[in-house]
Amino acid sequence: MANTLLIKNIGILQTPVGSFSHKGEKQGENVKMKDAALFIESGIIKEICENGKLPADAEKAETIIDAEGKLVTPGLVEGHTHLVFGGYRQNEIPMKLKGAGYLDILNAGGGILDTVRHTRQATFEELYDKSFDFLDEMMALGVTTCEAKSGYGLDMKNEMKMLQVVKALDENHPMDMVATFMGAHAVPEEYKDRADDYIELLCREVLPEVQKQGLAEFADVFCEDSVFDVSQSRKYLECAKDCGFGLKIHADEIEEIGGSQLAGEIGAISAEHLIAIGERGMASMAKAGTTAMLLPATSFYLGKDFAPARRMIELGIPVATASDFNPGSCPSLNLQFVMNLGYLKYKMTPEEVLTAVTINPACAIGRGDRVGTLEVGKQADAVIWDAPDMEMLCYRFGSNLAMQVIKKGILV
Amino acid sequence: MANTLLIKNIGILQTPVGSFSHKGEKQGENVKMKDAALFIESGIIKEICENGKLPADAEKAETIIDAEGKLVTPGLVEGHTHLVFGGYRQNEIPMKLKGAGYLDILNAGGGILDTVRHTRQATFEELYDKSFDFLDEMMALGVTTCEAKSGYGLDMKNEMKMLQVVKALDENHPMDMVATFMGAHAVPEEYKDRADDYIELLCREVLPEVQKQGLAEFADVFCEDSVFDVSQSRKYLECAKDCGFGLKIHADEIEEIGGSQLAGEIGAISAEHLIAIGERGMASMAKAGTTAMLLPATSFYLGKDFAPARRMIELGIPVATASDFNPGSCPSLNLQFVMNLGYLKYKMTPEEVLTAVTINPACAIGRGDRVGTLEVGKQADAVIWDAPDMEMLCYRFGSNLAMQVIKKGILV
Ligand SMILES: [Zn+2]
Ligand SMILES: [Zn+2]
Repeated sequence: MANTLLIKNIGILQTPVGSFSHKGEKQGENVKMKDAALFIESGIIKEICENGKLPADAEKAETIIDAEGKLVTPGLVEGHTHLVFGGYRQNEIPMKLKGAGYLDILNAGGGILDTVRHTRQATFEELYDKSFDFLDEMMALGVTTCEAKSGYGLDMKNEMKMLQVVKALDENHPMDMVATFMGAHAVPEEYKDRADDYIELLCREVLPEVQKQGLAEFADVFCEDSVFDVSQSRKYLECAKDCGFGLKIHADEIEEIGGSQLAGEIGAISAEHLIAIGERGMASMAKAGTTAMLLPATSFYLGKDFAPARRMIELGIPVATASDFNPGSCPSLNLQFVMNLGYLKYKMTPEEVLTAVTINPACAIGRGDRVGTLEVGKQADAVIWDAPDMEMLCYRFGSNLAMQVIKKGILV
Repeated sequence: MANTLLIKNIGILQTPVGSFSHKGEKQGENVKMKDAALFIESGIIKEICENGKLPADAEKAETIIDAEGKLVTPGLVEGHTHLVFGGYRQNEIPMKLKGAGYLDILNAGGGILDTVRHTRQATFEELYDKSFDFLDEMMALGVTTCEAKSGYGLDMKNEMKMLQVVKALDENHPMDMVATFMGAHAVPEEYKDRADDYIELLCREVLPEVQKQGLAEFADVFCEDSVFDVSQSRKYLECAKDCGFGLKIHADEIEEIGGSQLAGEIGAISAEHLIAIGERGMASMAKAGTTAMLLPATSFYLGKDFAPARRMIELGIPVATASDFNPGSCPSLNLQFVMNLGYLKYKMTPEEVLTAVTINPACAIGRGDRVGTLEVGKQADAVIWDAPDMEMLCYRFGSNLAMQVIKKGILV
C-alpha cells in the first residue's frame, strides 16, 4: 500500500480525545493505550490498536517503525511565537546586569524597537532563512504545528513582509504554520505618543489588506499599561472581528488593566500571558470559553511570577502552554522546557501538561479538528519519545527526548 | 604535519588565562582575541594568533576548520555530577504534586534509597552503557572534562562498581573523567539510625580500599541536617585526607549547620551547593581559598533560593558552576542551561560565567594545569559556538549552541 506507515511496539500511546478545548477535569483526561500500534495512510491515521493487536493492514505497510516500547503522543502544537525577527538582543545584558528596566532599555533605543529596526532592515530571504532554521530545531524537539505572529514591522510593508515569510514557511517547511497579524504589538517610533492614530491606521488600512491577501487567520494586540490600553485594544479587536479574524490578546502580563475581561467580553479565542490576572478576568474568560495561553518560559526568563494555572483549571478555563519565542522576553523555542515548567511551576499533572501542548493550543489556533490528538481520521502528526511515560517528559529537563518525529505520516 | 589541526577565522577567542582559580575581580577577567586562529599538534595548543595573523605552521596543518567568525572558548568543565545511577525517579511526580516533601517520599521507600536499590541491582555493563550515553550528550553540549561521584552503592561492592564504571568511561570515552568517592552520600538502609557506625565502616574499610585501588582522587560527604552532621563529616574528611584524597563537601544546601565553615577549616578544595551559606561560612572559605561549586539547576528544579554568588565573588571566593546531574534533585545534564542560570539568577557577567564553567571547576577537580583555558601548552579542548559572543550563550536558552566540539585536538 502506497504512503503507509505502521508504528508498532508502542509502550504507551497517550493522547487527549476529541477536537474541542479541554477544560476543568477534562484538562487532565488522557487516553493511555498499552502495547499499541498506529496505522497511517496518506498522512491520516487509519487505525489504532492496543494490547498487542495489530492493525488490519499491518502487513501491507510500506514503512514500519518499531517504537521500542516507548511513549508516543500527538505532535506538539506551539500556540504562541514571535518566530520571525531580525537581530538578537543579547547586547542588553550589561545594561540589565546594572539594573536597567524595560523602559530604561527602550529609552536607550533598545528593547522591542531595536528588533523592529533590525526586522525592517532584513530582507525577506534573511528572515525566511533564519526562521526556517528555527522551525527545523522546533520540529526536532517534537513540534509539528506552529503559530507565528507579525508585529516587528509596525508598518504596512514590513508587517506584510513578515506574514509573507510565514506563508512561505508554511508552503516549504514540513511544519504547519498558522499566522497571526499583530500590528498592534507596539507603537512604532513614527507614531510616538500617537497610539490612537496608529490604531486608526491599522484599522483603516492594514487589517483590511491583510484580510484581503489572506495572510493571517488571527489578529492579536498587546494590551498593557504604556502600550495599548483597553479602549484602543477593543477598537482594534472589533475592527479585526469585522474583517473576519479570530481574536487574541496579550493581556494582564504586567498589570491587570482589564485585558482578560475584554478577552471574554469580545469573544477572543485565547488570551496570552495572564500573569497578573484576577478573579474578574478569569470569570470573564471562563464564561466565554477563552483559552488561557500561558507562557511560563517568559516568566522564567524575566524572573517574574507564574500565571495561576491551577486556579484557571479549577474555574474551567482551558489552559494551553506555549514558548512565546521572541528575542526580547523569551529567547527560547524549546517547548519541552515549557512542559517541564508546566509541571514544576504551574503544578500541572503530566496529563494536563500534555493537553496544554496538544489539543488546547490546537483549538486556540483553529486546528483542533485536524491535529492535537491521535485519533482515527486525524492528521498523522506524532512523536516517539525516548521515555516510557509522560512523567519522564515532565521530570527530565535540558535534554531533547524526542526520538522520532512523524509529520503527516512521514518520518522527519 | 601529523596530528595537527588549524582552527581559523575565529571571530572572538575568549578565555580566562592562567592555571589557578580565579576569584574576585579575576573571576570576570577573560582575554578576548579578535579574528584569531589556533594551531594544535598532538592534542596540545601550539600557537594562538589574533588580528588576522596565521600560525607559523598554518600551511602544514593536516586538518583545517573554519570557525566562520564565531566564538571559540575552552571546552566546558563539568565539576559536579552524580553521573552513574540506576533507574530514574519520575514516578515521584504524583506524590510531589500532592505536596509530599523529601522525607515523606523517603519514608515511602522512595528518594535516594530508591536510586540506591536500582544502582545496586544494575550490572556494571548497564551502568556503563547508560553513563556512556550521558557523556555523549554532555560532550555534544560542549563539555570536555567531567567529574563524577559514587554514592548510590553505599557498600564496598557497589561503591567500587560505580567507581570502576567511571574508570572505564575515562578509558573508553573521549571525555576526561575525574572520580570522587562519595560513600558518605546517605546512610544506607542497613545502617538506619547508625550513621556513626556507617562513617566508621567507610573510614576503616572503604576509603583505604578506594585509595589502594586508585579509583578516586577526591572524597565528598553530604553534610546536612538528618544526613551527616558536622562532626561525622569532619571525621570522614580527616580520614580521607590521611588517605591522600582531595576533599569536597556538600554543605549548607538546606540549613547552615556549619558545613561551609568546616570546608574552610579542613582545607577542602571545594564546597558544593551553599544555598543557605552565611557570612561566617563564606569568611572561612575565602580564607582557605575553597572554591564554591554552585549548582543553580538544582535550585531551579527544586524551586529553592539561589546561592549568593555575587557576595561570594565580592569576598574573593572562586565561584564555579556545575550541573549536579542526578536522578533526584537535578535530572538535567545541560551545562549550557547552567550558564543561562549563572547570568539570570546569580547575576554574573558573561565573563564570570565563562570562568565558572572552565578554569574554576578545572582547578576544583585538579585539572587546572591541563584544561580550563586556551593557552599554549594546554590540552586542546575547545568549543566553536554558533554564537558571536559570550552574551549570546547567556541569553539564548533551550537550544544547543555548541557547533563543533574539539577534544584533544580531535573534532568530536
Ligand atoms: Zn507574545
Ligand atoms: Zn551533589
